[in-house]
Order: sequence, then structure tokens, then C-alpha cells
Amino acid sequence: MGQEKKLVEAITPMDQDFAQWYTDVVKKAELVDYSGVRGCMVLRPLGYAIWENIQKGLDARFKATGHENVYMPMFIPESLLQKEKDHVEGFAPEVAWVTHGGEEELTERLCVRPTSETVFCDHYARVIHSYRDLPKLYNQWCSVVRWEKTTRPFLRTMEFLWQEGHTMHETAEEAIEETERMLNVYADFCEEELAIPVIKGQKTDKEKFAGAEATYTIEALMHDGKALQSGTSHYFGDGFARAFGITFTGRDNTLQTPYETSWGMSTRIIGAIIMTHGDDSGLVLPPAIAPTQVIIVPIAQHKPGVLDKAAQLEERLQTVCRVKTDASEQSPGWKFAEYEMKGVPLRLEIGPKDIEKDQCVVVRRDNREKIFVPLSELEQRIPELLKAVHDGMYQKALDRRESMTYSVAGGMDEMIEAAATRPGFIKAAWCGDLACEEALKEKAGVTSRCMPFEQEHISDTCVCCGKPAKKTVIWGKAY
Amino acid sequence: MGQEKKLVEAITPMDQDFAQWYTDVVKKAELVDYSGVRGCMVLRPLGYAIWENIQKGLDARFKATGHENVYMPMFIPESLLQKEKDHVEGFAPEVAWVTHGGEEELTERLCVRPTSETVFCDHYARVIHSYRDLPKLYNQWCSVVRWEKTTRPFLRTMEFLWQEGHTMHETAEEAIEETERMLNVYADFCEEELAIPVIKGQKTDKEKFAGAEATYTIEALMHDGKALQSGTSHYFGDGFARAFGITFTGRDNTLQTPYETSWGMSTRIIGAIIMTHGDDSGLVLPPAIAPTQVIIVPIAQHKPGVLDKAAQLEERLQTVCRVKTDASEQSPGWKFAEYEMKGVPLRLEIGPKDIEKDQCVVVRRDNREKIFVPLSELEQRIPELLKAVHDGMYQKALDRRESMTYSVAGGMDEMIEAAATRPGFIKAAWCGDLACEEALKEKAGVTSRCMPFEQEHISDTCVCCGKPAKKTVIWGKAY
Repeated sequence: MGQEKKLVEAITPMDQDFAQWYTDVVKKAELVDYSGVRGCMVLRPLGYAIWENIQKGLDARFKATGHENVYMPMFIPESLLQKEKDHVEGFAPEVAWVTHGGEEELTERLCVRPTSETVFCDHYARVIHSYRDLPKLYNQWCSVVRWEKTTRPFLRTMEFLWQEGHTMHETAEEAIEETERMLNVYADFCEEELAIPVIKGQKTDKEKFAGAEATYTIEALMHDGKALQSGTSHYFGDGFARAFGITFTGRDNTLQTPYETSWGMSTRIIGAIIMTHGDDSGLVLPPAIAPTQVIIVPIAQHKPGVLDKAAQLEERLQTVCRVKTDASEQSPGWKFAEYEMKGVPLRLEIGPKDIEKDQCVVVRRDNREKIFVPLSELEQRIPELLKAVHDGMYQKALDRRESMTYSVAGGMDEMIEAAATRPGFIKAAWCGDLACEEALKEKAGVTSRCMPFEQEHISDTCVCCGKPAKKTVIWGKAY
Repeated sequence: MGQEKKLVEAITPMDQDFAQWYTDVVKKAELVDYSGVRGCMVLRPLGYAIWENIQKGLDARFKATGHENVYMPMFIPESLLQKEKDHVEGFAPEVAWVTHGGEEELTERLCVRPTSETVFCDHYARVIHSYRDLPKLYNQWCSVVRWEKTTRPFLRTMEFLWQEGHTMHETAEEAIEETERMLNVYADFCEEELAIPVIKGQKTDKEKFAGAEATYTIEALMHDGKALQSGTSHYFGDGFARAFGITFTGRDNTLQTPYETSWGMSTRIIGAIIMTHGDDSGLVLPPAIAPTQVIIVPIAQHKPGVLDKAAQLEERLQTVCRVKTDASEQSPGWKFAEYEMKGVPLRLEIGPKDIEKDQCVVVRRDNREKIFVPLSELEQRIPELLKAVHDGMYQKALDRRESMTYSVAGGMDEMIEAAATRPGFIKAAWCGDLACEEALKEKAGVTSRCMPFEQEHISDTCVCCGKPAKKTVIWGKAY
């Protein structure tokens, strides 16, 4: 009864109110529940299963590139957090502080990790002695806490799940290579598994990670023309290593300091999936990470043979995809709406008429295309169709991004006008001064998303001050 | 150089100082590092990889029994923790309190979860409405914090990793069935994958979980004769559900209260693996969860063809087990000691003479047996040998437990004498009174480990007070 109600309760259309559409999708697709703690969310079975698949995909890529998983304490003593000056300035305002253990007041406050550079360095100082101990290529899967004022499911929450890689290298070159390698791992993962096209680039000094020498980023464009930073990779030079007294005996027998990187991707990426692929019927999940890839809906299931046939097909398909059958008493119409809301990539309908013809109907979630598939070809066609769904989703997202990316070659007036009227990525030249970056934020409401690795000539002069340009930057409004 | 040193630095023999032996093993096998935070440990790559394999094994069993994973917030508002009276009394003295977020003092303190019954109930109250919503079979993998005074790696740490299942059911019978089912899942996992024999039973009221109606446990016996509680499963009745106002419309259209269970296993189990199977050469890992199952050590590796042959064998074995080759410049002797310390189940030696004879030498970690294996039979023999190692480890642990389990049919004097002189599991009859349980602890230094499901008649009268006995209890000293 409570469930049948859903059919009538449609979600808010995207065009009418994008923020409300987003909230409706995360609630109605049962990805999250708001918890009793401000800013913290409950990841429900579907939301967590998506994260598990993201974990599996990323973890395999991390291991293939030689990384090992570890687990560090979630508490960081205040004195440890303070060892690197820029880092503590960046994070101290947004951490949760533990002051009491049981009945007793602590002599030193502990913060709940907002990120773990400091604890990794503390450990590395104890285990790195010789160049033979390098590189150290560690990653951890955990939750972190940042005391945010306003929160939204997946996009900004006080606690969120992520992975954080922290590596130490013999030379700066090796560390920079690692920083780039991991950015590429993220970009490939987004494109090959999540069907999200991304732009790779470097953050400006203003936008880089607290304590980093350089931050690389992948930026994706959402349906509403706002950018979402989807993964970052940082090069630290030897700054943290010096602050934490990490040294090693080099090949030449001198005492040296190693070079560090860190890189992370979080549950935020689920927000990117929702806002890149979703539509007015709900979620659209990329096949690679969809917990259920094919949902079998029996038609006229009371008729003899239908449920048996559905069970047969499910058993056959289990060898090639993640498949389930919904044989509940709900109507087919209710089931269609339900699994569209939950973003299942393919729906397979099987009824008495199909059985007669030895075929079934397959409906793609991404474009609603209806395909008749002979039952004998099922194990071959379903994987092909899943691949077609992935490709279709990627191409659609890429086309939309292209149509929402444009250049501003003129000055500030053109920029302000563009930012106010055309949502999307704006390419414009920049002189490299912080003052211009701040003016763009204040007057045009845009921030620098990245200086793309693939530099393109837009103008010889800075869009803000008119002085000679140093870089082409992608500007935009961001989540 | 730093590494060669290890060969000479042997670990403390078990018989000389068991506690020191344990500490030596966890450090020298590089399972953990002590962190800068009191009572928190760093799980190093080997330690974490063992946990990952435990997770994989358990998670598959949870999913096979219909459970879904979710993720709940790590912070619990003080008012939420206080909703169930017994629960808060049990846990409040040992939780970490967050009192500040960034610069601001919180209006309500948050504790870092010591366990998540309260947040699961808070969520269940929002999502359970009808009997159609039941059962809810949720599990989460996370870390929890308990403010312990004295800590030891794996056995008792302030923060530890675990899984906690929390389920809701329509009837008490179903919930009790679930409690038993999950205890069996733990017991089977311990025996079939960790090679640890366990005794299944019920905790006395004194030892049960705060807020539970009944706690079931599996108890394992360590090398030194002390017990280790290895997994627990709790039946809550409808106590929490009532405290949290969880109700549902039943099949008969009346408003009803669901019945709850919870069950958990933690990184503590790694302590059980170490202390059940380890020896004076270090760790001995059960094949099912050993990150490396076979280590290939080339002999006289500078001779032509040796490293090539080792690489060939590794490639062939990759299809049947987790295998690595150590082609580093360390001596074979150093490598033997190193992988014995790290508990690798099988060592495969391959040198020029072996190549001539088309064979290799395989050495079992558990009993040091040396086996010549024709290279042509490798893919068949290695899995057989891994199975033999598992069986051998299980049988050895079981034999030891049997030899350290005995009955006390007399009175308190006999019990005190036994507990003081013979470490192990003591079976003795009990009248059911808390006073006797407390007296046994005070005078004999033993606690009740469990009332085993398989009851055996030891005496008609309580070992402490001489009144009629109600149950046979297993008593012992415990970690």
C-alpha cells in the first residue's frame, strides 16, 4: 500500500527545480536517509552497493599500479595536526574535536581525521630508513569528518566515505609521476566505468589543497551547468616530510628527505553520477557499477509457465551479468517505474506472448529503446546491450558538456554577461594573479575549476585585467 | 643491512614469555605499528590484507544469507545513546565525546560509536511501516571506538575495525533463528577458513551484551590456555524497538513491535589467529586468508635459467593460488626466516638441481614437512597441499584444545586448585546464581566463557555453593 503510493508521487522535474529534483532522486531511489545527526547521512542498501562497486573498481586499479591498503587511526592529536603550518590552517576550522574519553577530560584534544597526511607521515617517519624502503605506496578506505555549515547528500556531508592514497618517493620526479598516474587512474575510471567525461588539469594556488605544492583535478559538468570536482591528486614536494622529520639513507649514503603525494576520491562521486546521468524518471546507473544490471519483470505472471521461464532466464543470465527478477505482486507498471527510479540499466520483460515467440523485450534505461531479443541469443546480446548503454550514456554526457562549454575572449563585461546567462564551463585567459581570480569570483560569480593540461589559445590577455595572459583557465560555478 | 639484522634478532620463545612472544610477532611480522595516539594501532599492509580476506569471506557468507550492507553515521547524539537504559549504562563509561566542531561548542555532545544499535534503530523507526518491510537484514563494515585503559594490538584497542549486523524481524521466533544462524556463520567461518575450532554457547546474564536478552558466543582457546571470545550474536527481544518507538502494521492489521538482533566480529579475530596457530618462528596463517599462500624462493638465482623458471612457475600457479616470488638479493636463508615470520603457508624452492630433475621442493609452514613435487603436477598438488595445511592446522589446534579442556566435578577447593595449576577450559556445573559466578571470579580467577549448546553432565551440584546445578558452564581465564 505504502509502495503503490509511489507511482502517483512523481518527482520534481529537473527543469522546474534542479536542487529539488536531486533531493527527490536521492530519497525516492532510496540511496540515503537523513540521520538524526546534523549533516550526516545514512547510506541505504542501494547507495552503499553503488559505493561497494566503485570501491571494487578503484581498488583493482590501485593494486594494479602497485599500491597496498593499510588502516590508520581516525584520531589525530592536536600537536600532530599542527606540524605542517599550511595544512593546519586549512583544516583546523572544520574539524570535530574529541575532548573527553569516558568520564575523563583528555590532556590533549584529538581531532577526528579530516584527511590523514599527518598520521601517514607520523608512521612513515618510523618505517622509512633506507632508499630500499621506498617507494611506499599506501592507500586507505575510511570515513572522514569535516565540520560543514550547510550539507547535501553525497555532495557535502559532515562525514563521508573515501579513499586516500599517501605515497613517499626517493625523488621529486618519481613523486610527480605518481601524482599524474593517479589522476589518470581517476580519469580512466570515471570515463570507463562511470561514463562521466572529465577534464584533467591543475588547480590554481588559491584552489589547491592545504599544504600541497600542486593539486591536479578532474572536473565534470553536471546537468545544470555546474562543475563537480570529482577526484584530486596532490604533489607535496618534501614539505610534509621535512615537517615530520622523515629521512632516509640514499643510494650515495647521504641522508635525504623523501617526496610525497596524496590523492582521493569520495562518495561525492555518487552525486556526480546522479547529476550527470539522471533524468525526470530518476536515477540512471552506469552498467559497470549498477548493483543490478538487468531486472527481469514477468508479464501476466499468474499465467502458467511465466514465472518458470523468468527463473530460467535469470539463471542463464547470472553467468554474464548481475541480474534479479521481481516476482512480487506489484503490477508491471509499478515495477517499471520502480526500477527506472532506481536506475537499473536494462529491463527484461517476459510474458506469454514472448514465450510463444521464443523472445523477450529488453528496454534500455538510458534512451528507453525497446529491443526484441531471441531467447537463444540472450547471453550474447545482454552484455552487448550493457556496453551500448555505457557508450550511449558517455556520449550523451560528452555532447551535453561540449554544448555547454564556450570561450570568452573579451573582457570582464563579456565574462559577467556570459556567467550570468549561459551555465557551463567558460574558457578564458588569465594573467596568473590572485587578485584577478578573486575579482572573477566577486563580479562574475565563477571560480577557477582548473588550468587544463590541454591548453588552448583563447586570448593573449587576461579576461579580468587585460595584462598578458599566462594560462587558459576553465571557469565555472561549482558544487 | 637493516633487514639482514632481523635474522639474528630472534623473537622471544612462547614458553619463556607468551605476552612478549605475541608482541614480538605482531611487530616483526609487520602486522601493526603503534601510533602516536594512545591505544590506537596502524594496520600495516600485511595486517590489513589479512583483514581484507576476512572481510571477503564473511561478507560472502552474509550476502548468501540475504544480508545487505549499509553505512550509518559514526556520531551518536548523547540523547540517542540514552534511549535504551541498559545500553547506555554499559557503554557510556567507555566512549569518546566530541564536544566541539571547528571553533564552536556543540549544544549536544556526540559520542563516537562504540556500537550502532541506537543509530540503526533510529533509522529503522523511519523506514519500517508494514510487515512487508520486514525482515530488515543490514550489516555494516566500519571502525568503532571504546575508551580502554589498557590496550594490546588486535586484542583490545581504542579504535578497531569490525562488522556489525543489525536485523529486525516480524516475530521473536524469526529473530532467535537469525541470532542462531549468524552464530553458526561465525563458527563455520572460524573452522572452515581460519582453522580455529570454537565452542558455541550462550553467555550468562553477567557476561551478556548491554541491552540484550540473550548473547550467543563462540569461544576459542589460545596457546597459553586463555580463552578468546571470537564472535557474538545477540537477541534483543523488542526492548530497543520499544525504546525507539519502532512499530509496523502486521498481517492482521494491528500495530506491532518488531524483534531485533545484532552480531559482530572484529579485528580481534586476528589476535586469535596469531595465538592459535603461531609458533616460535612467527606467524602461521590459515591458507584461506593468507594474502600470499605460496612464496617462491629461487635457489642460486644467479645461475642461468633459475629466475626464468621461477617466473614460469609463478605464472602457472597464479591460476590456482595467491603466489609471489622473492627474487631480491637477500640470501635464501634470510628469505626462509622472513616468510616463516610472516606465516606464508607454503614455500616453494627452485634451484638448478631441481630444474634438472623437473621438480621443486615445497615446505609446509605448519609442520615444516618437505615435499618433492614434480613440476608437471604443480597446479594439482599445490591446492591439495594448501588444503592439507588447513586441515593440519585445524587438527593441531583441536588436539591442543582437547588436551587443555577438563572437568571439575568437586567443589570450590578443587576449582581453585585447577584454575591455578592447569590453564585451559574448565567444565563445571553451576546453579545459575550471580553470586556464585562472582565468587568464582574472585576466588578462582575464572569467568564464565559460555553455557555450551552441547550440554554435558559434570555434576548435580554447583561447583561453588553445592546447590542443585542448572547448567554446565565452561570457565576460564580470558583475553
